[in-house]
Amino acid sequence: MPPRPVQQPPAPQPLPGVDTIIAVGSGKGGVGKTTLAVNLALILAKLGHKVGLLDADVYGPNVPLMLGISGQPKVLGDNRIEPLEAHGLKVISVGFLNPGDKPLIWRGPMLHSIIKQFLGSVVWGELEYLIVDLPPGTGDVQLTLIQTVAVTGAVIVTTPSTVALADVRKAIEMFRQVNVEVLGVVENMSTFACPHCGKAVDIFGHGDGATTAKEYGVPLLGEIEIDPRIRVGGDTGKPVASLGEGGPGAKSLYSVARAVTARLAEVGANASGPAVQID
Amino acid sequence: MPPRPVQQPPAPQPLPGVDTIIAVGSGKGGVGKTTLAVNLALILAKLGHKVGLLDADVYGPNVPLMLGISGQPKVLGDNRIEPLEAHGLKVISVGFLNPGDKPLIWRGPMLHSIIKQFLGSVVWGELEYLIVDLPPGTGDVQLTLIQTVAVTGAVIVTTPSTVALADVRKAIEMFRQVNVEVLGVVENMSTFACPHCGKAVDIFGHGDGATTAKEYGVPLLGEIEIDPRIRVGGDTGKPVASLGEGGPGAKSLYSVARAVTARLAEVGANASGPAVQID
Repeated sequence: MPPRPVQQPPAPQPLPGVDTIIAVGSGKGGVGKTTLAVNLALILAKLGHKVGLLDADVYGPNVPLMLGISGQPKVLGDNRIEPLEAHGLKVISVGFLNPGDKPLIWRGPMLHSIIKQFLGSVVWGELEYLIVDLPPGTGDVQLTLIQTVAVTGAVIVTTPSTVALADVRKAIEMFRQVNVEVLGVVENMSTFACPHCGKAVDIFGHGDGATTAKEYGVPLLGEIEIDPRIRVGGDTGKPVASLGEGGPGAKSLYSVARAVTARLAEVGANASGPAVQID
Repeated sequence: MPPRPVQQPPAPQPLPGVDTIIAVGSGKGGVGKTTLAVNLALILAKLGHKVGLLDADVYGPNVPLMLGISGQPKVLGDNRIEPLEAHGLKVISVGFLNPGDKPLIWRGPMLHSIIKQFLGSVVWGELEYLIVDLPPGTGDVQLTLIQTVAVTGAVIVTTPSTVALADVRKAIEMFRQVNVEVLGVVENMSTFACPHCGKAVDIFGHGDGATTAKEYGVPLLGEIEIDPRIRVGGDTGKPVASLGEGGPGAKSLYSVARAVTARLAEVGANASGPAVQID
């Protein structure tokens, strides 16, 4: 009997109307993925682009809180979902569908379904950029995203601590393994200048993001200092980037956004999608 | 036709030989779950107890790095696994089985299997405390743990930021929903004293851990200040608690450990296991 042919999953497809899909990831939680994703999306919108933001963190959907928005997305015919609009962005999040403190105690297959639905049923319209804020880990959400749509590239966020970098290396290896271009590394919570005496303190360390980027031959897209104003911006639904580059705490974030677009131009944002080799 | 009886999953069972199982959780990543779990386990061991530590963070297993240990656990007859021993603790982690940077790109059912195996096949021997370091989220790992063994109680770790607390409330609600006693809340990265000028800076805020604990009617088990020495201890495999209560950065951690044992005595550590109501 001839060997049964291995069943290949269908190749990831472009998302109709969407030029560039940027995944913001990290192996680890709490390093500032959502803060970066939200501010990056805002900056690209402020630069005149059409931008969508998909909050793919099903268990901890923080995008609505950070953007200061809530509401129930409209369900159109054919079960198609209209994203909410805020700050010039089109936004979708599990947090809109399940607001409040009730947790979604979901096993993996449910994660797969909701991400498939967000990718297939949300009416994004024409977008130049879709930013996807990933949850921690290298599991169902990441796999479903990568296997379903052609992700243009991944921005990897880390803090400089050794422990964070251990998880970040796993995330880089994952994106490599599935042939998603790693656009580069952002070192968040990079250093801290005491607001009282002005002296620098490396609370979580400093510089190991650059070292890790070098190790993998990818660019360091920037370092974002520990600035309580950035955290307060997220906690109050007013991300610092919304006040422009000259606003308090926003400078490094604008610099990262510019590095991301430059890098996208370099790798050719319209390159053919990745060939997923994992099953 | 009579309605088909709803199939109840088997009730969670005590783990033979293990008196007390403490889950260290949080909805969110990066708040210091592993730092607390590792130091709590070390302190209980230093107080003369027999302690095991189960690193249940499959995608980001940081316990080996934080304890400075590596090695392949011995596989005994019947596929039983011997935990490693270090700092007076028995320890098991996916990090021992899959060291290095290669990620485990696993969907939910694989998470379920490995946690079942860690609970069923690891030869813990007699333990007074088994500390389980949970990953972020409210998904497969949490469900499998809670549905398999009778967890005595959960310690919830958070930072004081609004965004972290949003996820933490989901974690508390999850444990409540499955009838696992919430032992209390630990506010980590609570405040920061500049090492240069000594003045306090609330980088991530301060005090909202206490507010959230009060809101749910559970104790605040303590506040742990931002102290780069605690981070360096984890990054270098020498957790601060290993140097004793008088060692640098360890005081608040010892205070939390005492609050945890006092609270366990209060709730009756030998109470009957939880009745899991989720399916």
